[in-house]
Amino acid sequence: MSNLIPPHGKEEKLMPLLLKGDELQAEIKKAEGLKSIRITSRETSDLIMMGIGAFTPLTGFMGKADWKGVCDNFTMADGTFWPIPITVSTDDEEIKESDEIALIDDETGTLMATMQVAEKYTIDKEYECKAVFKTTDTEHPGVQKVMAQAKYNLAGPVKVLSESYYPEKFKGIYHRPEDSRKIFEEKGWKRVAALQLRNPMHRSHEYLAKIAVEIMDGVYIHQLVGKLKPGDIPADVRVRAIQTLVDNYFVKDTVVQGGYPMEMRYAGPREALLHATFRQNYGCSHMIIGRDHAGVGDYYGPFDAQKIFDEIPKGALKCQNLNIDWTFYCFKCEGMASMRTCPHGKEDRLLLSGTMVRKTLSEGGELPPQFSRPEVLEILKEYYQSLEEKVEIKLHGAATGEVKKD
Amino acid sequence: MSNLIPPHGKEEKLMPLLLKGDELQAEIKKAEGLKSIRITSRETSDLIMMGIGAFTPLTGFMGKADWKGVCDNFTMADGTFWPIPITVSTDDEEIKESDEIALIDDETGTLMATMQVAEKYTIDKEYECKAVFKTTDTEHPGVQKVMAQAKYNLAGPVKVLSESYYPEKFKGIYHRPEDSRKIFEEKGWKRVAALQLRNPMHRSHEYLAKIAVEIMDGVYIHQLVGKLKPGDIPADVRVRAIQTLVDNYFVKDTVVQGGYPMEMRYAGPREALLHATFRQNYGCSHMIIGRDHAGVGDYYGPFDAQKIFDEIPKGALKCQNLNIDWTFYCFKCEGMASMRTCPHGKEDRLLLSGTMVRKTLSEGGELPPQFSRPEVLEILKEYYQSLEEKVEIKLHGAATGEVKKD
Repeated sequence: MSNLIPPHGKEEKLMPLLLKGDELQAEIKKAEGLKSIRITSRETSDLIMMGIGAFTPLTGFMGKADWKGVCDNFTMADGTFWPIPITVSTDDEEIKESDEIALIDDETGTLMATMQVAEKYTIDKEYECKAVFKTTDTEHPGVQKVMAQAKYNLAGPVKVLSESYYPEKFKGIYHRPEDSRKIFEEKGWKRVAALQLRNPMHRSHEYLAKIAVEIMDGVYIHQLVGKLKPGDIPADVRVRAIQTLVDNYFVKDTVVQGGYPMEMRYAGPREALLHATFRQNYGCSHMIIGRDHAGVGDYYGPFDAQKIFDEIPKGALKCQNLNIDWTFYCFKCEGMASMRTCPHGKEDRLLLSGTMVRKTLSEGGELPPQFSRPEVLEILKEYYQSLEEKVEIKLHGAATGEVKKD
Repeated sequence: MSNLIPPHGKEEKLMPLLLKGDELQAEIKKAEGLKSIRITSRETSDLIMMGIGAFTPLTGFMGKADWKGVCDNFTMADGTFWPIPITVSTDDEEIKESDEIALIDDETGTLMATMQVAEKYTIDKEYECKAVFKTTDTEHPGVQKVMAQAKYNLAGPVKVLSESYYPEKFKGIYHRPEDSRKIFEEKGWKRVAALQLRNPMHRSHEYLAKIAVEIMDGVYIHQLVGKLKPGDIPADVRVRAIQTLVDNYFVKDTVVQGGYPMEMRYAGPREALLHATFRQNYGCSHMIIGRDHAGVGDYYGPFDAQKIFDEIPKGALKCQNLNIDWTFYCFKCEGMASMRTCPHGKEDRLLLSGTMVRKTLSEGGELPPQFSRPEVLEILKEYYQSLEEKVEIKLHGAATGEVKKD
């Protein structure tokens, strides 16, 4: 019997949809003869999440009743809690219900899955956007993707055939829920808090993690290695920056770093719920929810992602939110603090904007150690400077005419 | 309906044993005609705890069956959880079961209560000491008091007639459970952590409180204003030192300072359980348990008081322990940390012994701000220096012969 929180869903067991061995080979062979559709990177990443059991208890892409229930009240047709529709779309007019099809990642051309089409339906995309993102503004990167979906949604059970490049590219970091559960069990952990990361870990994130370390058995620093917005720091740089922080500033066996292949939707509160849902599958009893969790721009109130946990049906989700306020270094407190623990003024706090941090690092400038650990800054500075060099090489090439066509 | 944790015991309601108004006056009058016994300061303080409902659901001092059950398995005869015997003793041979007697505080001469004697019995004091203190060493201040108890224990329901000097001496700080519950309710708190204090609050205690503030609705800084060991800092000085810390370093409405009239027993793990039990009555859902909670000397392992919460019957106590490791300032972490969050060495940590702190302060020396806030140190320095002056005046008086008898 595991000490860990059970996976999400009535059956309380992991349901990975990835085939293995002979079964996998046979299905790949069969797929070659099937009609296929090309799917987006978001659909691909959702498929991998299903493949590894991170989206337990989903058995495939959602049908209309699930889609509607999830939009309206976080609940699938069978009563299971789920916060964001997980769907796949196509413009293909010929695919019919009861067809079996192959799903190909449009970016890499990888055969990702086969699917038994049980339902072909259309949705009101604006309706979904309003429910999930609270906006239909196409400046919102998540809205953009939903509005760009094809005409028909296809629903039905999937057999996942690949995890794409993740296991290789993020070796040692890429975890399936069975991996993280095994690690936690070996360490004897029971109360585990997940820290969601999609940026490098500065002292404000370190503080979030350390509050949790103080009171839990351990913290799972779980970073997104799927796609982000353009301009964000690539996952491999983030992984190295986090690892150096863990090595230098955390006690051994109090934190574990892992990565997961999902893409950001930037759905704020709804995405916080999704984060907690799949973290439960990864074995986490708690999910740290900070300021503006999974938000973008000004679409969500800074603590909407905390409040939404009180709005879902009681008992719907076993993984609990661990709310922490906006964190920073305060010179009067002489330490890390949050709006809940620091009574001082703005002028005493070290608050740097992302833009300012990027600018300073790419110009080779120094950031104070109260903002980020020197070992972390070193790695980020190196990355930003390599970007500058690339730009310079390009400019230089253009100036000397080396790459000119005429 | 209150949002707060219910009081301890089956009835889940506060049971203060203090009489009021006419009933009080009539009982005081009746007490004048009763046979009386003198009781110790520990017995007096327990009586006040019963009076204000902090020891709910006790109705009086314990009989032999309760005493034995509490010693053996933390359980009174009726099945209620209780971790330390609450008893009163006398050498009076004439008192008989069914007598009604008056209880007088031996130190102040105050009429404290009347008691219907239901049982007069003897105990094996060493047995109690082994069970409660894990030692019979009379160097242990708690053992000392049990071993010094009189020949007979008296059991039976009490009517409490006085709260002694506490309400007046600690005006604004002295809380009855109904007071703290009212304060928490007004603030809309539900999850409230109690921080037990019997010393001034340095940064290590501030850090304990702030971890709890980060994740709870609020923290009840609840300090003992009953008797301590000789040489400890008096309650009024501690109250001022804590208040200046709260005023300067905490956000308004995240902490409340209160005092309770119990005396320390220094029973370590068992006392931690007692602290949690009566904090539940005060409305606290959680009890912070740090390193060597309620310990003295080397009688208990540093985390025995945390472990004991896993050894009591499940569900016996609603108030939960919030365990936090040994805390300190670390120069490499550049902030407060604990053994769980700081991976650095002893040489990087600011660890000062109590003896060293007292010596420095009484000599007017400086302690680093990483150890204690300057505003707090100011108050303590003043106190220690006033002590020195008293000693000097005495010595001076002796030297000049002014206070000599002959």
